[in-house]
Amino acid sequence: MAALTTGTWADSGCPRTSQKDIMALLQEFGLETYPQFTTGSKVLQVGSAKVQRFKWIPSLSPIVLIDLLFFIWKVERLQKQVDHGDPYNCSRGEEWDTKTLETFLKESLWTRGAYETIAAFIRSLITMEPSQISTLYFLSTMSSAGGLMAMVETNEDSAQGLKVKGGTQQISKILAEKVGTDNVLLEHAVTKVIQSEESIQLKCQNGLTVSCKRAVMAAPPMVARQIQFEPQLSLQRREIEKWMPFGNCIKVVITYEEAFWKSNGQSGEALTYGGPSDVSGCDVGPLSAVCDATTPKGSPALLAFLSGDQAIQWSRQKAHTRKNAVLKSLTDFFGSQAETCLDYFEKDWSEELFIEGALAGVSTGAMRNFAAGLREPQGRLHFAGADGAMEWDGYMSGGVQSGIRAATEILHQLRPGSVSSAELSGTAYSPSYKAPQHLRRKVKQSYMTKGLSFAILVGVIALLYGSLYR
Amino acid sequence: MAALTTGTWADSGCPRTSQKDIMALLQEFGLETYPQFTTGSKVLQVGSAKVQRFKWIPSLSPIVLIDLLFFIWKVERLQKQVDHGDPYNCSRGEEWDTKTLETFLKESLWTRGAYETIAAFIRSLITMEPSQISTLYFLSTMSSAGGLMAMVETNEDSAQGLKVKGGTQQISKILAEKVGTDNVLLEHAVTKVIQSEESIQLKCQNGLTVSCKRAVMAAPPMVARQIQFEPQLSLQRREIEKWMPFGNCIKVVITYEEAFWKSNGQSGEALTYGGPSDVSGCDVGPLSAVCDATTPKGSPALLAFLSGDQAIQWSRQKAHTRKNAVLKSLTDFFGSQAETCLDYFEKDWSEELFIEGALAGVSTGAMRNFAAGLREPQGRLHFAGADGAMEWDGYMSGGVQSGIRAATEILHQLRPGSVSSAELSGTAYSPSYKAPQHLRRKVKQSYMTKGLSFAILVGVIALLYGSLYR
Repeated sequence: MAALTTGTWADSGCPRTSQKDIMALLQEFGLETYPQFTTGSKVLQVGSAKVQRFKWIPSLSPIVLIDLLFFIWKVERLQKQVDHGDPYNCSRGEEWDTKTLETFLKESLWTRGAYETIAAFIRSLITMEPSQISTLYFLSTMSSAGGLMAMVETNEDSAQGLKVKGGTQQISKILAEKVGTDNVLLEHAVTKVIQSEESIQLKCQNGLTVSCKRAVMAAPPMVARQIQFEPQLSLQRREIEKWMPFGNCIKVVITYEEAFWKSNGQSGEALTYGGPSDVSGCDVGPLSAVCDATTPKGSPALLAFLSGDQAIQWSRQKAHTRKNAVLKSLTDFFGSQAETCLDYFEKDWSEELFIEGALAGVSTGAMRNFAAGLREPQGRLHFAGADGAMEWDGYMSGGVQSGIRAATEILHQLRPGSVSSAELSGTAYSPSYKAPQHLRRKVKQSYMTKGLSFAILVGVIALLYGSLYR
Repeated sequence: MAALTTGTWADSGCPRTSQKDIMALLQEFGLETYPQFTTGSKVLQVGSAKVQRFKWIPSLSPIVLIDLLFFIWKVERLQKQVDHGDPYNCSRGEEWDTKTLETFLKESLWTRGAYETIAAFIRSLITMEPSQISTLYFLSTMSSAGGLMAMVETNEDSAQGLKVKGGTQQISKILAEKVGTDNVLLEHAVTKVIQSEESIQLKCQNGLTVSCKRAVMAAPPMVARQIQFEPQLSLQRREIEKWMPFGNCIKVVITYEEAFWKSNGQSGEALTYGGPSDVSGCDVGPLSAVCDATTPKGSPALLAFLSGDQAIQWSRQKAHTRKNAVLKSLTDFFGSQAETCLDYFEKDWSEELFIEGALAGVSTGAMRNFAAGLREPQGRLHFAGADGAMEWDGYMSGGVQSGIRAATEILHQLRPGSVSSAELSGTAYSPSYKAPQHLRRKVKQSYMTKGLSFAILVGVIALLYGSLYR
């Protein structure tokens, strides 16, 4: 459940009503939710970098809006073709996996305004640059969440962002109490996992060795590489661990005496490609997204994100340079009152030794090992964690869903017969389980047409050349 | 010098006369070389999967040959624009880094035969699929070796492959003797590196702690992630470690009573996209390349490579299934005598805990951290190893070159003034050193034209729609 602790706010931290697994857990634990504040105008800063305030539709040129609309239609259509249970196994799986999301955006979008809107959205969502992500992974993630719009929308009628009163850390704490806090060993980093016929042994950095019948690993794929395994994990598992790095994200909480944005009719929401920067070494401003973070008791705050390459560039600046730039952007978005804050607190997730970032994404050419590598048990070792979840992959709800799956697998192993086939569905032990497809499809037919056109072109040039120099 | 031990044969293991750093070391150590055997016809299996034997030019269709020629010209022209010292800082650096090599191949090649020839070559060379590699990394690596042809050619007049009599392991052994074998600690895996104002401490898995003034790390970037650093390494370093995984390669040595390929007029060389496969779970045959590996004393042998995705697919098969498929391919290439071997020995480099593969490559969107991340010292820690070398990146010669660079850096720090500015050139301490560029260039102008065409298109549709439904 490592994933639960990182998502304290917005996006990964805001459960939505459509996220049934986390919602069920919250209900079971008697934790209350409250809606993300979204009343008032929003801010968009893309294209010309001019700050636009809007309530319903951003005041972008109609051409940019049509461009955006076409793109959303396209993604919604394509994501439906991808089964997140085995994403590589769809008719265009291989084609999409060989292409970066940046290439896909360049092919699909016509205007700079639309490009920057989508790129800012992707940065905020996956904390990576579109150039670092496989198009197939993007479509598959969208599919696991029920579509692009399910991820974007924050209007009150639909899957709106909810926050947990008292913070999401309570979930981990209650879980620990249920297990018995004496049975939870913190500060026991596992360095080696040894499997034998009879048991699985976990060796910790501090010298302790724990021996048990079954174990669950919920560490993110690339972080799991800090652990040595005997025998080694399957090549498919090791492959996805190599190709699923974490993105970069610095979260900033800025508290104020007054929620001036609300008084000004603003919701506190902003999406930005960064805007201009006058700091050497940073090609755009620091921010990708902002939202209201006022506590349920009413202490006013804004939550701002530095994501992807922006987080890398700005983390190399001095703390006060970064702070000034963040406050400058907030002033551009919400007025001069944003300049004078009570407190300014930064959290750079990439500095965390056992987290290493904010959200993990898969780079190109690795999706053929995604489903088997992230979900199939290996001997006595089972896998959970938000990454690779069947629903809401990368989100808290996905963390809960995959945790339940791993628990079901173990129950089936320890008490054979106690788990019905229906409950086993979605696990590798299900009678209907099909090992994920990893073969490449031979979609090379385009070379026939291409080759023929090329042959004609060469022929024409040869004829011309021949007639000129005869 | 970890890199030295992995490259025992062909490609990374064959020094070439143009690889001056390794050649100088061989001369210093009095080690003799002998040429790679290349006399006779070669084998090519691409496109229709028919096995073609040829001496000078493969019997591909003229269209495929022209396609290949155009591609080679294009790469030779483009790689000259990339400075391997700071690859991201060229006018098309960002554009090339957002594109997978697969996308580049699909844009550049017209015929299936040419595509498969180049893809087989890239697999053999980088042990990854073209879909997993940044186009900028590919061009930069080509540039570090003096061009595509310098990598491909094996004719006797030019930079021909040489092998070391007695094997390349001798280099490591002689180096160890020079340092004093008592000073070389094998089986002391470092798990933690702690830097302070006064010293750098290396903590080993077996409990030993070594304290010193300066340290060199030559582990491949992603393998270095098994080590914890206090304080953490720079974000640029950590970024390139995340995005430079190892490819997959299984090397196979097959010994025979007789070098029947030589008697049949064949050199033993083959390049293949894999050919057909009748094994379920493997979409192509196992091999990517083969060459002669007869020892200087005359014991006949062939060396065969399973590379990239082929290595992954075939490593999941039973050992005898894999062996049968390899021998079947060799029979297709060199005749029925290939079926009966004396010995068959496999080495899967991805099974090695501290190597994890054969050659490392950079995936898309990460090259902006390449030069600084792989070469700039971090406090008392210096970086060597074949990856990121200025010349022959990824090769033994690159390992020697970067080792000399790291030694120069340390000498400069320990004995200030003992190293001239000329000798410091190429290190981060050189007076003329410019920190590598990592800013994105604003090459978004294409959106102007694209946006305009799109606007016109939308306008025309609107007019048509208007005139139809008026």
